[in-house]
Amino acid sequence: MITNPPRSYDPRTFKALTFHDVIPRFREGSDTPRAYLERCLATIDAREPAVKAFVVRNDANARAAADASSARWKAGTPLSAIDGMPIAIKDLLETKDMPTEMGCEAYRGNVTNRDNAAVWALRQAGAVIIGKTVTAELGGTHPGPTTNPFDAACTPGGSSSGSAAAVASRMVPAALGTQVGGSVIRPAAFCGNIALKPTQGAINRGERQTTSMSTTGVHAGCIEDMWQVAIEIARRAGGDPGKLGLFGPAVPPEATKPQQLIVVESAGWSGLDAASRAAFEALLEKLARAGITLLRRKDHAWIEALEQSIRNASDIANTITAWENRWYQSALVELKPQGVSARLKATVKKAEAMSPEDYRSLLLQRAAAQQCHQALAPLADAIIMLSCQGPAPLWPGDVPGQPLAPRPTGDSVFNTPSSMLHAPCVTLPLLGVNGMPVGVQLMGQQHEDARITTMARWMQQAISPVVMP
Amino acid sequence: MITNPPRSYDPRTFKALTFHDVIPRFREGSDTPRAYLERCLATIDAREPAVKAFVVRNDANARAAADASSARWKAGTPLSAIDGMPIAIKDLLETKDMPTEMGCEAYRGNVTNRDNAAVWALRQAGAVIIGKTVTAELGGTHPGPTTNPFDAACTPGGSSSGSAAAVASRMVPAALGTQVGGSVIRPAAFCGNIALKPTQGAINRGERQTTSMSTTGVHAGCIEDMWQVAIEIARRAGGDPGKLGLFGPAVPPEATKPQQLIVVESAGWSGLDAASRAAFEALLEKLARAGITLLRRKDHAWIEALEQSIRNASDIANTITAWENRWYQSALVELKPQGVSARLKATVKKAEAMSPEDYRSLLLQRAAAQQCHQALAPLADAIIMLSCQGPAPLWPGDVPGQPLAPRPTGDSVFNTPSSMLHAPCVTLPLLGVNGMPVGVQLMGQQHEDARITTMARWMQQAISPVVMP
Repeated sequence: MITNPPRSYDPRTFKALTFHDVIPRFREGSDTPRAYLERCLATIDAREPAVKAFVVRNDANARAAADASSARWKAGTPLSAIDGMPIAIKDLLETKDMPTEMGCEAYRGNVTNRDNAAVWALRQAGAVIIGKTVTAELGGTHPGPTTNPFDAACTPGGSSSGSAAAVASRMVPAALGTQVGGSVIRPAAFCGNIALKPTQGAINRGERQTTSMSTTGVHAGCIEDMWQVAIEIARRAGGDPGKLGLFGPAVPPEATKPQQLIVVESAGWSGLDAASRAAFEALLEKLARAGITLLRRKDHAWIEALEQSIRNASDIANTITAWENRWYQSALVELKPQGVSARLKATVKKAEAMSPEDYRSLLLQRAAAQQCHQALAPLADAIIMLSCQGPAPLWPGDVPGQPLAPRPTGDSVFNTPSSMLHAPCVTLPLLGVNGMPVGVQLMGQQHEDARITTMARWMQQAISPVVMP
Repeated sequence: MITNPPRSYDPRTFKALTFHDVIPRFREGSDTPRAYLERCLATIDAREPAVKAFVVRNDANARAAADASSARWKAGTPLSAIDGMPIAIKDLLETKDMPTEMGCEAYRGNVTNRDNAAVWALRQAGAVIIGKTVTAELGGTHPGPTTNPFDAACTPGGSSSGSAAAVASRMVPAALGTQVGGSVIRPAAFCGNIALKPTQGAINRGERQTTSMSTTGVHAGCIEDMWQVAIEIARRAGGDPGKLGLFGPAVPPEATKPQQLIVVESAGWSGLDAASRAAFEALLEKLARAGITLLRRKDHAWIEALEQSIRNASDIANTITAWENRWYQSALVELKPQGVSARLKATVKKAEAMSPEDYRSLLLQRAAAQQCHQALAPLADAIIMLSCQGPAPLWPGDVPGQPLAPRPTGDSVFNTPSSMLHAPCVTLPLLGVNGMPVGVQLMGQQHEDARITTMARWMQQAISPVVMP
C-alpha cells in the first residue's frame, strides 16, 4: 500500500493554495500570474504521478492566458478579481481547447470545440484554464485513477475526484466540480477542500442540463477564492435557463456569526464511525460554547419531519437521476457497449425498468422534502451536518471475477439531502480523523448561498478544527 | 414568382396524410409500413424540388426500419400504435444516423452519433425516422430554403419550416418541431398543419435543454396522429428533467365540447389584416351559435389583466431566450465568425449588453403573466386565439446591401404568449384566407395538453372551417 504522504492531515495546520492574497503582489509587480502558474505547474509535475488528478492539460494555452493576464495586471486593467487564477475543470464540462472525455471510454478523444458556460465565463474573467480533471465515469460512481492526496490507498471521493485532489495537493487554488448526488461536497470533504455546491441552477450548467439535480460547484483552498470564482461565473454566464442565478455580493461576503443552527443527522448517522461522530459532537460543543443554539430532531417536530423526508434521500436522488439519464445512457450502451462500465450498465438496466409514473412519484417525494426544508427557515440560520460519512474509505480497486464494490468513491448519504432539496451548501475542513480530512457543511435555504458563506467564514475564523487520533 | 400549386388552399377540402387509419390494413395485410414509406418517398421526390423541406434523408435506414416494422405488423407484434409511421425530424434535434446542422453554416457536417431523447423514443416505438427537416438557423429567425407548399413565394414560417412544409405537402404524416417563441405553432398555422406545442417540459428535449421556453412539438395531418406521436414519446422518454411530463391517455382522447372559451387578442390583434380578423370573428360566431359562451377582455377584469401581462410577450420571450443563448452563441461567433448569419450576430450583440439583473426582471414579468393565466382557470375551459397574424407573408429573400428584413419567417406575436406562459396549445387549420391557411389555437392551463386536444377534436368535428376569399 502506497501512502504519499503518510496519513498526517491536520486541519489546524494544513495550508491550501490561495490566490486572493497574492493580488497585492500582482499590483505592485513583485509577482505575476505567469509566475503563479509556473508554481502550479511545478507542483503538478511533482504530485501528479501519485495523485493522478488530471486527464489532460494544455500548458501552452495556460501560459499564453497567464501572460495576457500578467500584462493586464501590469497595465492596471485586470478583467476581474480572478484574472490570472489557474483553475482546473472537471472533465464533464466542455472546453474548446481540450477533449472532454467524461471518464468514459466511449468518449475517448471527444473534441467539441466548445466551452461550457462556466468555462466561457471564467475565460471572460481572465482566469487561466489549466487542464481537465478526472471524473468518475459520466459523473456516476465508476472511479477514475485519482488517489487521495493524503493517502494514496484511499479514494479522493467522486465524481469530482480530480478537482478535489488537485486543490488538496496545492496544484491549483480552485477547480470546478459538479454534483448530482454528492459529487462536489463528498470529494471536497474527503480531500480537505472548501467547496460550494450552490442552489440548484445558480451557476449556468451550459450544455449539461439533462439532469434535474446537477449543479456546477467550486472547490477552493479558501472561502475568498471559492466565492469569487462562483460570483464571477454567475455575473457573466448567469444561472441555468429559467433560474434566477446566484445571488450575493461581487466580493467575498464578510463573516457573520449564526445564532441558531439545526443539526441534521440524515440517514448517514447510523453508519458513522465512532471517531467521526465524536469529532463532530466535539465541534458542536464548541459551537454551543460560542453561544450558538443548536436544535436537533428531538427538539422540534418539524426537524424530525425533515429527517423523515430525507431518510431515503440517496434512493430518491439516485433513482431520479437514473431515469433522467435513461434515454441518453441507454442509447450510449446500445451504440458503444464496450465503451461503458459494468457499473453504468447496471444503472441503465435499473432505469429501463422505470415508468414515467415511477419518476413522477419520486418528484413528488422530492417536492415534499423541499417543503419540509422550507418550513424550517424561521427556526434557524442554517443547517449543520457532516459532509461525508467519516474519512475517505480505502479503495483497492475492483477485483476481477468479484462482484463490483457498491460505492468505490464513498457513500453520498450525507450529500443527497442537499441535492434533492436543491439547497446550497458549503463544506469546511473542520475535522481531522485518523490523519484524514472530514468535512462539515452548512446548508441554507434556496438562494442563501451568500448567507451560508458568511456563516462558514465566521466558523473558519472563530472555531478551531477538531482532531481525533 | 413560382407558385406551386397556385393559391387554392381550402381547409374544407384539403386532405392531409394520415397514419392511424391505415393500421387496420397493416393488420389485415393489405398494406405495409414499407409500402406506406415508399408512397411518402415518392411524394417527397415529387414535391421536394419546390418545397425544399429536407436537409438530409436516410432512405436506406428508413427502408430497413420500415421492413422491420412490416415484419412486426405481419407477426402481430407491433411495438406501438405508431410502429412504422414515417416521421421527419427538425434538424435541431440530434439523430445518430444523420448529421445535425441546425440550419447553421458553422455546423455543416456536424455528426454527433447520438439520438435526441424524442428521436430515441420514436425508434423504440417502431417509428421510421425518414430525414431531417430544414430549421431556421439555430431555431432563430434566419430562414432556410423551405417554401410554403401552398405558395412558394411565401414563407412556410419558422423555425420548424421543413417539418411544417413536409406535413403540408403530404410527404409525411407527422414531424417533430420545436418552439421557443413561435416555432411550432406559427409554421404549422401557415402550412395548414395540426400541431401540439405541449406544456413546457412535457416532452423530454434531450440534449436541447439550454433555453427555458423551448419545447418539442408535433406537426401532423390529423389530431389522432398528433396525440399518438406525443404520448408514445412521453411514455418512453418522459418529460424534461425535473418536470412531470405529458399527462393523458395512451390513445387519442375523445372529442369534448367546451362550455366556455376565453378569446384572447394579444398584441397581434392590432396589426391583423381585415380578412383574417373577419374569418376569425366568423369562426367565433359559429362557436357561439353552437352554444359556447365566449368571454373577451371587456367581459372580465382578469382577462384584461392577462392581456396586459402578455402585451410585451414577444419582447420578453425573445430577450429571455437571447440571454439564455448568450454564452453559447457568443462563443460560437468568436469561434466561427463566418459560420453564423448577421441576424444571429445582432441577437448576440443585444444579449451581450444584458446583465443577470435584466434577465431576472424578465423572469419576474414572465412569472407574473403565468399567475394571470392561472387565475383564469375557473372562468373557462380554454383560451382560443389566432395561431398566426394572417396568412404566411411573402418572402422574396434578403436583398444584398439592404437592411435585413426583421421577420422573414413571419411574426411570432400570437405565439410568444403560450411560450412565456409555458402553456400547451393545439393549432387547427380552421381558416382559409386568400387561398392560404390560417390557424386557430386552443391554449390550456399547464398540463392540460389532453384536455385541449379533446376540445380541438370536437371543434374539428363540429365546426366547419371559414373561408375568406
